[in-house]
Amino acid sequence: MVCNNLAIALLHHPVYNKHHEVVTSALTNLDQHDIARSSKTFGLDRFYIVTPSEEQRKLAERISGHWQKGWGAAYNPDRRQALDIVRVTPTLTAAVADFQSEFSKQVRIVVTGAAQRTGSTSLSVFRQHLQETDQPYLLLLGTGWGLTDECFAAADLILAPIAGCGPYNHLSVRSAAAIMLDRLKGSEREDK
Amino acid sequence: MVCNNLAIALLHHPVYNKHHEVVTSALTNLDQHDIARSSKTFGLDRFYIVTPSEEQRKLAERISGHWQKGWGAAYNPDRRQALDIVRVTPTLTAAVADFQSEFSKQVRIVVTGAAQRTGSTSLSVFRQHLQETDQPYLLLLGTGWGLTDECFAAADLILAPIAGCGPYNHLSVRSAAAIMLDRLKGSEREDK
Repeated sequence: MVCNNLAIALLHHPVYNKHHEVVTSALTNLDQHDIARSSKTFGLDRFYIVTPSEEQRKLAERISGHWQKGWGAAYNPDRRQALDIVRVTPTLTAAVADFQSEFSKQVRIVVTGAAQRTGSTSLSVFRQHLQETDQPYLLLLGTGWGLTDECFAAADLILAPIAGCGPYNHLSVRSAAAIMLDRLKGSEREDK
Repeated sequence: MVCNNLAIALLHHPVYNKHHEVVTSALTNLDQHDIARSSKTFGLDRFYIVTPSEEQRKLAERISGHWQKGWGAAYNPDRRQALDIVRVTPTLTAAVADFQSEFSKQVRIVVTGAAQRTGSTSLSVFRQHLQETDQPYLLLLGTGWGLTDECFAAADLILAPIAGCGPYNHLSVRSAAAIMLDRLKGSEREDK
C-alpha cells in the first residue's frame, strides 16, 4: 500500500540531448539503484522509471529482479528493499495512473530542472505543503540534458533549482534527486 | 589556488567489505563524476580520490584526463571543470599533505558514516563552523561498507549521519556526498 503522497518519476523521454533535440535517453544502472535507495531512505513508496523503449524496460526489470529474486536478494537485502519500490512504465501517463490508483485526490505533476524559471516554488514551501496536505504529487526528473519545455508547460508546479555556491551548477540527476529528497523529507539530527 | 576550507577525500582503503574485513575497494567511475560535479557545484576546490592501487590511480587519472584533455573536453566543458578539482593520491596522508600546502592552520579530519555514534557533530553546527573560521577540513567518505573504526578513532570530528524517514538508511556514497555538501554549503532559493 502506498502511504506517501510524494513519488518520483525518472523520465527517459521526452528529454533533450546536448543539441536540444528531443530524444529517448538510455537507462543508467546507477540511476535506478541510487534514486531507489534515496527514495526508500526518505520514505517514498514509489519510484517510477519511464521509458518508451520495451528493451530498456526489460533491462530495468532485470536489474530490479536480480536484487529482488536473483543472487543479489540474499547477498544484499537492503538493496532489495529499495528496488521493491521501483515501477517501470512506458509513459508518464501510465506512471500517473498507477500512482493515482492509491489516492482519491488527483495526482499533481511537479517538475524541476537546473535552470531558474519564473513562477517557481521553493523546496521549503513545497516541503511544508507536502506535510500539511494529503495531495499526491509526482515529481518528474529528467535524464539527458533535461525535461522538455512541454513538460514544464504541462506541470502543475515548478520547483526552484538547487542553488550551488556560484555559477557552476551541474549536478547529476542522482545527486539532484538525493538533495531534493533530503530537503523535502529529511530531518535534522541535532546530537552534538 | 585553493580558497575553500572544505575538501572531500573518497577512500578506497581502508574500508570494510560486507564481511567486516578491511579491503581496498574498486574505483567506481560514477563516484568520480558525481562527487566531482557536486563538489564543484557547492564551491569546493579539491576532491581527493585515495587508493593504494597504482592501477586504479592510473584509471582515475585516465577518466579525468578523458574529460580534461581528451575527446570529452570539447564535448562537455562542464564536466572538465568538475574533474579539474580531482586529485588522485595513494594515501590519506598524501591527500592531507596536498591540501595542507594551501593553509597555515593544520588540516583537521572529519569523518562520517551511516551509523549513529556518540559525540558526533550535527551538519548544521559544522556548517556554521566552516563559515565562521578559516580552519581547513578534509571530509572523508568511505566506499564499500564504510570507513574502518580506526578512521573514526583517528578523526578530529565525527559528523552525525544523514537522517532518513525511518529505519531504512542506505544511501549511496554519491547521494550522501551530495546531501552533505548541500547541507554544509547550499543556499535556499526563496523565489515563489
